[in-house]
Amino acid sequence: MSKRKKLRSDIAWSDASKIVVRGHNLVELIGTTSLGDFAFLELTNRLPTPEESTVFDAIVVVLVEHGLTPSAIASRMTYLGSPEALQAAVAAGLLGIGDRFGGPSEEVAKMLQNAMTGGGEDINAMAADIVAGKRNAGRPVPGLGHPIHRPTDPRTKRLFEVAADNGFSGRYVSLMNAVSEEASRAFGRALPVNATGAIGAIASELGFEWRVCRGLAVIARSIGLVAHILEEDREPLAPEIWSRVDEEATEHMRSETTDERD
Amino acid sequence: MSKRKKLRSDIAWSDASKIVVRGHNLVELIGTTSLGDFAFLELTNRLPTPEESTVFDAIVVVLVEHGLTPSAIASRMTYLGSPEALQAAVAAGLLGIGDRFGGPSEEVAKMLQNAMTGGGEDINAMAADIVAGKRNAGRPVPGLGHPIHRPTDPRTKRLFEVAADNGFSGRYVSLMNAVSEEASRAFGRALPVNATGAIGAIASELGFEWRVCRGLAVIARSIGLVAHILEEDREPLAPEIWSRVDEEATEHMRSETTDERD
Amino acid sequence: MSKRKKLRSDIAWSDASKIVVRGHNLVELIGTTSLGDFAFLELTNRLPTPEESTVFDAIVVVLVEHGLTPSAIASRMTYLGSPEALQAAVAAGLLGIGDRFGGPSEEVAKMLQNAMTGGGEDINAMAADIVAGKRNAGRPVPGLGHPIHRPTDPRTKRLFEVAADNGFSGRYVSLMNAVSEEASRAFGRALPVNATGAIGAIASELGFEWRVCRGLAVIARSIGLVAHILEEDREPLAPEIWSRVDEEATEHMRSETTDERD
Amino acid sequence: MSKRKKLRSDIAWSDASKIVVRGHNLVELIGTTSLGDFAFLELTNRLPTPEESTVFDAIVVVLVEHGLTPSAIASRMTYLGSPEALQAAVAAGLLGIGDRFGGPSEEVAKMLQNAMTGGGEDINAMAADIVAGKRNAGRPVPGLGHPIHRPTDPRTKRLFEVAADNGFSGRYVSLMNAVSEEASRAFGRALPVNATGAIGAIASELGFEWRVCRGLAVIARSIGLVAHILEEDREPLAPEIWSRVDEEATEHMRSETTDERD
Repeated sequence: MSKRKKLRSDIAWSDASKIVVRGHNLVELIGTTSLGDFAFLELTNRLPTPEESTVFDAIVVVLVEHGLTPSAIASRMTYLGSPEALQAAVAAGLLGIGDRFGGPSEEVAKMLQNAMTGGGEDINAMAADIVAGKRNAGRPVPGLGHPIHRPTDPRTKRLFEVAADNGFSGRYVSLMNAVSEEASRAFGRALPVNATGAIGAIASELGFEWRVCRGLAVIARSIGLVAHILEEDREPLAPEIWSRVDEEATEHMRSETTDERD
Repeated sequence: MSKRKKLRSDIAWSDASKIVVRGHNLVELIGTTSLGDFAFLELTNRLPTPEESTVFDAIVVVLVEHGLTPSAIASRMTYLGSPEALQAAVAAGLLGIGDRFGGPSEEVAKMLQNAMTGGGEDINAMAADIVAGKRNAGRPVPGLGHPIHRPTDPRTKRLFEVAADNGFSGRYVSLMNAVSEEASRAFGRALPVNATGAIGAIASELGFEWRVCRGLAVIARSIGLVAHILEEDREPLAPEIWSRVDEEATEHMRSETTDERD
Repeated sequence: MSKRKKLRSDIAWSDASKIVVRGHNLVELIGTTSLGDFAFLELTNRLPTPEESTVFDAIVVVLVEHGLTPSAIASRMTYLGSPEALQAAVAAGLLGIGDRFGGPSEEVAKMLQNAMTGGGEDINAMAADIVAGKRNAGRPVPGLGHPIHRPTDPRTKRLFEVAADNGFSGRYVSLMNAVSEEASRAFGRALPVNATGAIGAIASELGFEWRVCRGLAVIARSIGLVAHILEEDREPLAPEIWSRVDEEATEHMRSETTDERD
Repeated sequence: MSKRKKLRSDIAWSDASKIVVRGHNLVELIGTTSLGDFAFLELTNRLPTPEESTVFDAIVVVLVEHGLTPSAIASRMTYLGSPEALQAAVAAGLLGIGDRFGGPSEEVAKMLQNAMTGGGEDINAMAADIVAGKRNAGRPVPGLGHPIHRPTDPRTKRLFEVAADNGFSGRYVSLMNAVSEEASRAFGRALPVNATGAIGAIASELGFEWRVCRGLAVIARSIGLVAHILEEDREPLAPEIWSRVDEEATEHMRSETTDERD
């Protein structure tokens, strides 16, 4: 028989009279702890300071709602087919929060954290290394520029203000700004920090491992997707999108067939 | 060509310089609005009062973390196979927040809201109708009793206190308590209100349509699942669970084969 | 410590030199067993006869591809966001194969199987009971009529022919046809058996429990969804659908804002 | 208004009397086309030759069932929570067919196809390049060795036989075998081709783009997962796994608490 490794989790336990989450009696948290603070506790194993609480809520709030995204459309389409399972419609939407939409803030945080653990002291030198590395690999620098929000992303300034007001504008924020300056110079066009870049930098200031960033996007988006599904339940878009897409995309095959019949 | 129905969504929009969510300029919400309040805004189209904020956070917080549930195990198993896609592991876990784990608070809220819109005045008569209806259908009354938390669910008392302290202990809470008393009498054993029952009643006090309750469970659980996946990343349980389950469940087929060989 | 229930599964096992699936040495099945026959083995614990094989493949083949369905659109949207995880895009599409699109053949099979286990002998009496039951409940009879395929669903005739040619046109097929006649009379308009109705009846002839029908839809659709994702990878539709839907659905909010500015 | 790109899909269309899939009238395929051949048609836009049919079925059949994998456990866990939505349980299982379990055959095919399009003629030189590349990157060569099937994977020999018997043992199979020999030499231990390696090579022989391989795994596994869910419905494993895992993994927290109370 195989040697067994003891199973062990340190998150929560309960018995007949007690529920303990991250070392806290759940009952004592009810009514005193906000949803954001509870999320911070779950992710870090301790409750946040008031400053951490404000900054954490700020970055997660930005990720909740981005309008009729591919993810929201996928949720609405799924709800049309499986009205019995709202959880499936939310899950379908979350499945699109990957490399393209949930990944970038993760990528920013990883880029900044790797640079920082590289042990250098000079922020500008790190920024130059980062930009050169991406440029040589023919890849864009994550966290810069935006297809719609031009010339600057209105969220960035506010996120950096909130971080600074609460003591979280340190080396990661400096490095992100230095990367923006360096990239603008290297690529010869304005590449300001976007919301994703700000979130990746601020999450790093809060001490979150880069991997957490995709998780924050997933948590936040689950809220937005529930809102979209509830709206879909009252005023459906999915049937109309379905019929328009199907009609237009298959039109050429119908007419070819008609021609053949002539 | 087919008649077209105009597509319309009232949740959010953005242009080059502005992002508007539920009629609010997003930038003005960053740093001033908690995650729970932003979720309330998304779901109800307005920011909560301080009392609503406290009560909303209280019921959602309770739903975040229930330990090594089937849902958490499914997430951990999925992360083992698809480490590239944390969003897929969260989604896999959420897919189990259905009729059995996400459904009960929805069922409670539906039961209470249907009774109330029935238009009666007498809470006790409504409770008697509800219990008789479930009893005749041979179905349990949702929101009562608990397999582990005995004799009473420690969360219920605290949730009802927080609701009362903030002015949300009205007719739905009364009806839920009346259902508990009536069911205890009818079934001849103590059937106290559990956390699910309290959440269904309090969500109704807050004005949420019953359908929202499953959504609240999904939102809350997404936080807990990210925490489980991050722990799984550092201290994996999935490989050990896999090998134990596979070994034990297929043992009888191996030994049958060995017998045949003799 | 809790009493333990032995874990036991009878599907498959393997050791260093052997893989056994449903009692068969996998290596002996490779190159001799078709995909459909292997699926039949997985679901029923035995290989099909040639007739069962033909009929099984016939009903599953019909479920593979229905064009640009909500499910296919959800897959394509998800692939846009998570190109790293094709499995997530397939899963998102499958999540829409629920009560509305995967459920009907399940519902037909359940309806026919419940009627048959009711023990009656008279097919027409059973049909009358079924139709009266649905009518009294104000619900449509599943498996009849079609919004597009009029006056008749071209798949039905062929599916019933294949079933008859292979000895699977028995009491379930008769009952489904009797339900169609009875419903047409009762509702005063032609309600021919559609593909879903034929599949539910033929799956019952093959001895499948009704619950399997939704599973057949899920299996078949996974093939179609992979085809859609591969096409999406080469000729993407998702970005265009996204921009059109977002633009049209949020237009009214933009113009309201413009008005305010004037 | 934005310029519109025409939506176009070439997979399927239907009207009142006809359903056309990949240029074929669906009704003519019912009863004449096996599930595997229909899948081949969906993925390649043409029906297979008899030889292609045999080889395609052979590689997909191998991917259907691997026993109580993490994926099967995730499906069973999800079904416990959401019995109303079998599609969600299948989807949860498929979400684990990623980089670790669905990825390797994809990785093999990509490795072989990239080497071949590199334009060389000498198989051994290509193999040496591949192995050196992986070795320098400190990464294992995909498609070689197996943790359980030792010394050789019993599926490999049979898969290569079926491929050879049907004329699909060409340059990709040769390259895969050369990679195995080269890697065994370079790493100083036997590294025979495993089933994944054989599938990646044979899929390449069939002309499939590497990306299709993960899709084949997803298609095949959906069959196996439905079988596991049907067994779970009759003989549940999930509740027992849940209670064992939760009890063992949280034991240390319970006893710490007891100590504190003393």
